[in-house]
Amino acid sequence: MKVDLNSDMGESFGAWHMGDDQALLGHVSSANIACGYHAGDPVTMAATAAAAVARGVSIGAHPSLPDLQGFGRRTMQLSEAEAYGITLYQAAAMQGFAKAAGSRMRHVKAHGALYNMAAKDRKLSAGICRAVRDLDPGLVVFALAGSVMVEVARDMGLQVAQEVFADRSYQDDGSLTPRTQPGAMITELQQSIAQVRCMLQQGFVRAVSGKEVAIQADTVCLHGDQPGAALFAQAMREALLADGVTIAAP
Amino acid sequence: MKVDLNSDMGESFGAWHMGDDQALLGHVSSANIACGYHAGDPVTMAATAAAAVARGVSIGAHPSLPDLQGFGRRTMQLSEAEAYGITLYQAAAMQGFAKAAGSRMRHVKAHGALYNMAAKDRKLSAGICRAVRDLDPGLVVFALAGSVMVEVARDMGLQVAQEVFADRSYQDDGSLTPRTQPGAMITELQQSIAQVRCMLQQGFVRAVSGKEVAIQADTVCLHGDQPGAALFAQAMREALLADGVTIAAP
Amino acid sequence: MKVDLNSDMGESFGAWHMGDDQALLGHVSSANIACGYHAGDPVTMAATAAAAVARGVSIGAHPSLPDLQGFGRRTMQLSEAEAYGITLYQAAAMQGFAKAAGSRMRHVKAHGALYNMAAKDRKLSAGICRAVRDLDPGLVVFALAGSVMVEVARDMGLQVAQEVFADRSYQDDGSLTPRTQPGAMITELQQSIAQVRCMLQQGFVRAVSGKEVAIQADTVCLHGDQPGAALFAQAMREALLADGVTIAAP
Amino acid sequence: MKVDLNSDMGESFGAWHMGDDQALLGHVSSANIACGYHAGDPVTMAATAAAAVARGVSIGAHPSLPDLQGFGRRTMQLSEAEAYGITLYQAAAMQGFAKAAGSRMRHVKAHGALYNMAAKDRKLSAGICRAVRDLDPGLVVFALAGSVMVEVARDMGLQVAQEVFADRSYQDDGSLTPRTQPGAMITELQQSIAQVRCMLQQGFVRAVSGKEVAIQADTVCLHGDQPGAALFAQAMREALLADGVTIAAP
Repeated sequence: MKVDLNSDMGESFGAWHMGDDQALLGHVSSANIACGYHAGDPVTMAATAAAAVARGVSIGAHPSLPDLQGFGRRTMQLSEAEAYGITLYQAAAMQGFAKAAGSRMRHVKAHGALYNMAAKDRKLSAGICRAVRDLDPGLVVFALAGSVMVEVARDMGLQVAQEVFADRSYQDDGSLTPRTQPGAMITELQQSIAQVRCMLQQGFVRAVSGKEVAIQADTVCLHGDQPGAALFAQAMREALLADGVTIAAP
Repeated sequence: MKVDLNSDMGESFGAWHMGDDQALLGHVSSANIACGYHAGDPVTMAATAAAAVARGVSIGAHPSLPDLQGFGRRTMQLSEAEAYGITLYQAAAMQGFAKAAGSRMRHVKAHGALYNMAAKDRKLSAGICRAVRDLDPGLVVFALAGSVMVEVARDMGLQVAQEVFADRSYQDDGSLTPRTQPGAMITELQQSIAQVRCMLQQGFVRAVSGKEVAIQADTVCLHGDQPGAALFAQAMREALLADGVTIAAP
Repeated sequence: MKVDLNSDMGESFGAWHMGDDQALLGHVSSANIACGYHAGDPVTMAATAAAAVARGVSIGAHPSLPDLQGFGRRTMQLSEAEAYGITLYQAAAMQGFAKAAGSRMRHVKAHGALYNMAAKDRKLSAGICRAVRDLDPGLVVFALAGSVMVEVARDMGLQVAQEVFADRSYQDDGSLTPRTQPGAMITELQQSIAQVRCMLQQGFVRAVSGKEVAIQADTVCLHGDQPGAALFAQAMREALLADGVTIAAP
Repeated sequence: MKVDLNSDMGESFGAWHMGDDQALLGHVSSANIACGYHAGDPVTMAATAAAAVARGVSIGAHPSLPDLQGFGRRTMQLSEAEAYGITLYQAAAMQGFAKAAGSRMRHVKAHGALYNMAAKDRKLSAGICRAVRDLDPGLVVFALAGSVMVEVARDMGLQVAQEVFADRSYQDDGSLTPRTQPGAMITELQQSIAQVRCMLQQGFVRAVSGKEVAIQADTVCLHGDQPGAALFAQAMREALLADGVTIAAP
């Protein structure tokens, strides 16, 4: 059994620091690196790519809506051509930093509101996926497990890694419980680990209603911007390794 | 005899339009396409790259200082690491759009204040040239003829195209007459053509003092943002073709 | 009878030019001046404020979503606190330029997507209107005639100018026909004038369905970014003056 | 004897946090609040203004060069008109937040590179000071003690607070020792306090050469972005109070 552990990284900007990338790099297999639109200035991108290479972590782009003030978390109306353009711009820039660090970019994962919008919107997914394909058809698209984006990427012939969340609860339709609702976050470490184990070993997640929902877990998102993030990542990694799971980029 | 004619393009941004790229694409052999820092949003970059490919014009990146409000024309203090980062970011992004348009990026030319600063500053030149080399050592660096940047690029083993200006007068040391001084601009078409002819055929430019200054003209910059720019480009092209000069990207 | 004619102005940015403000200033009574978030850098704001004062045109702020790349036309998720903050920021900045030009800012009109979102969203309207009230309770709020924003502003004790459009057709509920639908734009000058006359003299607008919809026309928006905009404004002004209507800011 | 203690505040931006404003507000008499160009989004500005009012700390604007990526610390070529425009824009915005918080903005202090450039450049100083005067001639300009900016502001009839630094050493000409030189920073608390005492009681500062340089200390800058900043501010305040110095905004 094999799974990828991914985390968002390089989310500092200029004089502002965010996240403990060094600690997380010791536990994940894929790094989604911010590309300048929600975080991540060029000097930070270069340093983050070099750090990922040094730790043997696979590099991916983490393109966002153009919204530094809102950290890319505010939904924004976007045409398919705009989704294509901003994804190509940011992913190509990241590709350059990966190459300059002596490596190669392996995946693209949309950030924040762009990720959530694309999960439900076929046009946005198409814009993002066409950009990935035009840049490098060998890139892996990270997309919310079971979402529209998974289908769109596959229909374009792209390799997809279905992404699941260790610290979020699920609804009956396989979507994440909105953060505004109670029980959206799983704050107990053992419960998070149990949820991921169940996904990997049983192929389903138990929704908040109790229902078993089939889910494919190719890559697990570990949040990096919260206190205790590195400890959480380490515990998850060790639990999975103890189960005999191989942790590696797709 | 062979020379390249280049022009800055893709300098629209969002709802704002600038330049007559379509007309200029009929006359130049290289397009320096804005990469988002002084002009050029992703949708404009995609459209400009596609237009260049359609007209058989070679694509280059035109990276700038991060200064949309000042159109990249205001000098700004920059460390070598920052020069490296912003060049790599923008050039890699442009490389992606060139690839998506079914082509390949061939050159990098710094824009505005970054170009002028690098012409005199070995550290900035090193930052820019390292970014070019790390991205693709086959890229051609466009640099002010006779400048420090030419030396730095060559010392790194990069191919350089020395750039001359048709509509600017020169000083005894081979630098351009600052725009703030009288006689900086050559407004007479025939005089511009004569200056380029002299550079190509005699290997020198006559400075404002009357002195003959040796100069290597690999690529001629044709400005695109002025009224009559396309007619000027056309006249230059036709005059050079009539001389038997081959017009082609380096 | 009295009405205000308003137009968006100062929508240039840095090296990019937009609109023919000088021509329009001869025909309107209120100028909505861009404040930097969708257009309008500080130098442009200063020049536009001075030009408005020179022509006796009343100055207003035209705050927008933070979206230079999209010219403030893309809807964006915004909390009430964010709507409050961006409105206060931009309107206060504009107030400073009006004062520096020897005048006083009289009104605030939200731009583009922010205007359209607020017309239907009580929370956004509240955020915007609280910012106006906290800045200067004597300011007039320009809002889509008949919209939620009109109610919210009045409930806060603010003076409201209900805004109508000369070149847009209306739906049965008093909303504007979306631009994506046929017949959204009124391209015939005489028809535009007739629509405004009907609004002023009869108090209603004939919807595309033929239905008479009651409407209060305090201020008429004249678009400035289209070819012929100044001629259109002039014709509208002259037609209204010939009817004996007084054209003046609220 | 009376002196002002000031600190830069509100330098968070969107999702990024910086500084411990709450702690510092307990020790200073003036807050220089970031206005969006180097830090400080509108929501942060509103919160910082409210916090200052709640603690009885005087509010000032802290306008910067337009350089979020560089935190306003990189020198940038600027015309007098641009310096005027960006100062008026940011200071007027801050004025709005001060008013909305139920207070009134009292001073303007340029940030980072703009502050340092203006200290030596009469034209930049004039641009900044004209903006302050046009906005509100009752505002106090904070300027480096003994600098060109002090003269320019006075010549315009503006009230000036000459600013000194507790943790920086001085040169024979009254300028600060550049940070690139050894001994630029005073890291010993007691030495910092002694330097400020000497300035206040004796009217001079001992330069690194040992020379006594006359200096007028109206306001003392306490940095807020370093570890221990709040403790440093508290110790300075208590030492001065023990000397019988009144700590209050100018």
